[in-house]
Amino acid sequence: MANSKYEYVKQYELDDTLLPGCWIVIRIDGKGFTKFSDLHGFEKPNDKRALDLMDECACEVMNEFHDVRLAYGESDEYSFVLGRSTDMYGRRASKLVSLLVSCFTANYVARWPTHLPDTPLRATPMFDGRAVCYPLDAHLRDYLAWRQADTHINNQYNTCFWALVKSGKSPAEAQAALRGTQTAFKNELLFREFGINYAHLPEQFKKGSVVVRRKALVEAKKREDGTPVMRERAVPTVLHVDLIRDDFWNENPHLLAP
Amino acid sequence: MANSKYEYVKQYELDDTLLPGCWIVIRIDGKGFTKFSDLHGFEKPNDKRALDLMDECACEVMNEFHDVRLAYGESDEYSFVLGRSTDMYGRRASKLVSLLVSCFTANYVARWPTHLPDTPLRATPMFDGRAVCYPLDAHLRDYLAWRQADTHINNQYNTCFWALVKSGKSPAEAQAALRGTQTAFKNELLFREFGINYAHLPEQFKKGSVVVRRKALVEAKKREDGTPVMRERAVPTVLHVDLIRDDFWNENPHLLAP
Amino acid sequence: MANSKYEYVKQYELDDTLLPGCWIVIRIDGKGFTKFSDLHGFEKPNDKRALDLMDECACEVMNEFHDVRLAYGESDEYSFVLGRSTDMYGRRASKLVSLLVSCFTANYVARWPTHLPDTPLRATPMFDGRAVCYPLDAHLRDYLAWRQADTHINNQYNTCFWALVKSGKSPAEAQAALRGTQTAFKNELLFREFGINYAHLPEQFKKGSVVVRRKALVEAKKREDGTPVMRERAVPTVLHVDLIRDDFWNENPHLLAP
Amino acid sequence: MANSKYEYVKQYELDDTLLPGCWIVIRIDGKGFTKFSDLHGFEKPNDKRALDLMDECACEVMNEFHDVRLAYGESDEYSFVLGRSTDMYGRRASKLVSLLVSCFTANYVARWPTHLPDTPLRATPMFDGRAVCYPLDAHLRDYLAWRQADTHINNQYNTCFWALVKSGKSPAEAQAALRGTQTAFKNELLFREFGINYAHLPEQFKKGSVVVRRKALVEAKKREDGTPVMRERAVPTVLHVDLIRDDFWNENPHLLAP
Repeated sequence: MANSKYEYVKQYELDDTLLPGCWIVIRIDGKGFTKFSDLHGFEKPNDKRALDLMDECACEVMNEFHDVRLAYGESDEYSFVLGRSTDMYGRRASKLVSLLVSCFTANYVARWPTHLPDTPLRATPMFDGRAVCYPLDAHLRDYLAWRQADTHINNQYNTCFWALVKSGKSPAEAQAALRGTQTAFKNELLFREFGINYAHLPEQFKKGSVVVRRKALVEAKKREDGTPVMRERAVPTVLHVDLIRDDFWNENPHLLAP
Repeated sequence: MANSKYEYVKQYELDDTLLPGCWIVIRIDGKGFTKFSDLHGFEKPNDKRALDLMDECACEVMNEFHDVRLAYGESDEYSFVLGRSTDMYGRRASKLVSLLVSCFTANYVARWPTHLPDTPLRATPMFDGRAVCYPLDAHLRDYLAWRQADTHINNQYNTCFWALVKSGKSPAEAQAALRGTQTAFKNELLFREFGINYAHLPEQFKKGSVVVRRKALVEAKKREDGTPVMRERAVPTVLHVDLIRDDFWNENPHLLAP
Repeated sequence: MANSKYEYVKQYELDDTLLPGCWIVIRIDGKGFTKFSDLHGFEKPNDKRALDLMDECACEVMNEFHDVRLAYGESDEYSFVLGRSTDMYGRRASKLVSLLVSCFTANYVARWPTHLPDTPLRATPMFDGRAVCYPLDAHLRDYLAWRQADTHINNQYNTCFWALVKSGKSPAEAQAALRGTQTAFKNELLFREFGINYAHLPEQFKKGSVVVRRKALVEAKKREDGTPVMRERAVPTVLHVDLIRDDFWNENPHLLAP
Repeated sequence: MANSKYEYVKQYELDDTLLPGCWIVIRIDGKGFTKFSDLHGFEKPNDKRALDLMDECACEVMNEFHDVRLAYGESDEYSFVLGRSTDMYGRRASKLVSLLVSCFTANYVARWPTHLPDTPLRATPMFDGRAVCYPLDAHLRDYLAWRQADTHINNQYNTCFWALVKSGKSPAEAQAALRGTQTAFKNELLFREFGINYAHLPEQFKKGSVVVRRKALVEAKKREDGTPVMRERAVPTVLHVDLIRDDFWNENPHLLAP
């Protein structure tokens, strides 16, 4: 059974190399997570257990793929940043997207019981992914600012919405009460009616999660007597910090270095 | 914090729609599965437990995505066929590839303990994916023939290789003994030296796995008294049949229907 | 002055290969030809000299590029069909589009004086181009039917419009008179008010131009005494025939052959 | 004859938008110009008439398309640079490439008699084209340096080659004499054997042609008495200057401005 007569079909695989010299962002996004979070009784507006699980999966992606420099996540989405000069898998879009999605998903299922020990997984968590190229550092920063501003806007809205719903309003009434309102109004509402000071909510909810590598002592191996040998390693570390202003970037110049 | 000033970054997401009117094949492939299978002690040349796990994951992909008509798998890879006229996710390559990979991976991790109950998962199983378009029915059939011929060739080689290795040869010696040999020689070798009749090996190993939907009675719900209500459903079903000759296609004309 | 330090910029040229196994249609289209035709006093609704020039350019494209099997033109546009199995310039979209456009444009300028001897060229004629792939023969036929139906619809409308304008109506009045009218009404209008039997108009105007190769005796070279040596050659030939019904395709089966 | 049943074929036109925010270079290149230049008796190694014609065509492209900021040409090729933020034709590759090629070709044919009045055009001049994106200013400068270094290398080689051939060597002998030689050797050869001081050759041959817009007084219209009304306009102007060092860029900062 010779295979050579069929091998021509390989030529139908078209090249999908991403433009060299650009930042590559791979954004992954939960499929149908509104329903998925209802099914598993996620707390509203934010379930810390589910967010921690997302953050841990992002760390695992960065452990696995060293060309990922930075990640940013909120809710059921995560963005992974590859450096301008990366040649990971020849910059082929489908390779990069599929492997990051696969790594993230595998960890999501495997680490679920650690984060939600009393909640059996009752549906298949799935994430889609896409690759986007950004030519300039300014574009990359604006991309991350876009996601973080989105986190803030959604979180403020959802905090109000669920406060209203938990106080007895129907979802439609809560929606109507918030339609067209501004930031100041929503902060007022939270404070006056529910005694919630928005500024005091957890940073993870307000800012989302930034993952960067930080030097840390980790157990590299064990000696024969069982005591650990510690080594300094660059370890993916979750921060809840502002990405929009310059401070973070001034403090971490290596992230934008060539 | 207005988001509108950053939203321009969305325009950098370029369109990756696959050509309409073509068959779409999404092929997923295990990353580093040689190492992964060693780490988990997979039997050589084929581990039925691992193959069954792959097959079950493929069935779950077909349960989830109704536009997948047919799947074919071997070893650590699986190909999923979407019909010419599918408009699933607007035929966007990254959406299709990432979601199928994510669904497959999630199930691989979740169902691992059922198939390998005594083997804890010690590494992250990952799959890459790619999308390929085929204009004609003949191209699709040749693609599947290419994969199935590959299954046969690899299985025959691996069966010989591992028989030699298990009999005491080093991997290099086994490789040298098989270099440049033909089908007939390998069958002879197996029979004469190891008493293995290649034709009697399991069809799953020789032909790989074809997944199609078959009508079957399944439990749709339970009555109040606990007895099941059975309904006829189209259920993904694993076959180990020849895809190269015409018989399968003559018996399943709906698979190539428009 | 070493060039090697700059050569990396070549890697930024991304692959734009068109899917193998599909029909390729390159459609070129005049840029700003409403203005261009006014500037050069083209007759309305059709200028036979300008159409003949377009047809001749299409023949020259087919003389130059033997992989073009068929062309169809109307007004200021032309479509060129490359066979499924063509490997012309490795099926790279930009090569194919740019060369056909360049060949067409060069001939348009060079042959203009032959067709419009009393009209100096006063502006630069320009054509844009695009490549489209069609997987099935039926798609290709529908593409050509789409263009030919468009020819008919436009020609009937324009014939009415210009008859009304020439009879003293303003363009706005002519447009209003025709808005929402059907084929039968327009034919009636032409016949009753202007004595024009639409069926008797030139086929070139009603059907557009189909270019195929036909065997013909052509002068291959001259003998020493000056008499010509005739040889049979496949010569691009302009027809004004129906492409929508089956007749043309039944009579020219080689056009759709693999 | 309704057209709606065929219109679905339009969906097969896939998007080919170039990444926003990048420099776009459209490079066009003569097809078969070795043969074309022989056929028309172009002087070797450089024919000033043919180069001037190329330069004039490039100016016309810049007159027609205002988003082209800069052009660089040598021999039978020309590169056109569109600014990062151009939205010309929605940045669609095939539109941009085909229109620039078409404009260039039309002018090449139309202006041929002005530059080569005694040489009738005996073949169809054709140019292919491609679009390439460059994310950073440095990439764009390196691209242009690549082309200009290529001009220098080719011109030096060709000057030697044709001097040798004109002195009686066969092409093969000339090629052999130059194989593997360096810049210094070639300059020596030209000077010692042929009395040619390479540094004194025309800048157009050594540096190629840079086209930028320069303010100039041009006749905008005529007064009733026939005297011209002069207005300041930005006019495409051909320079033969160095693009590799910083001077040109320091003197023309607007060319790299956002």
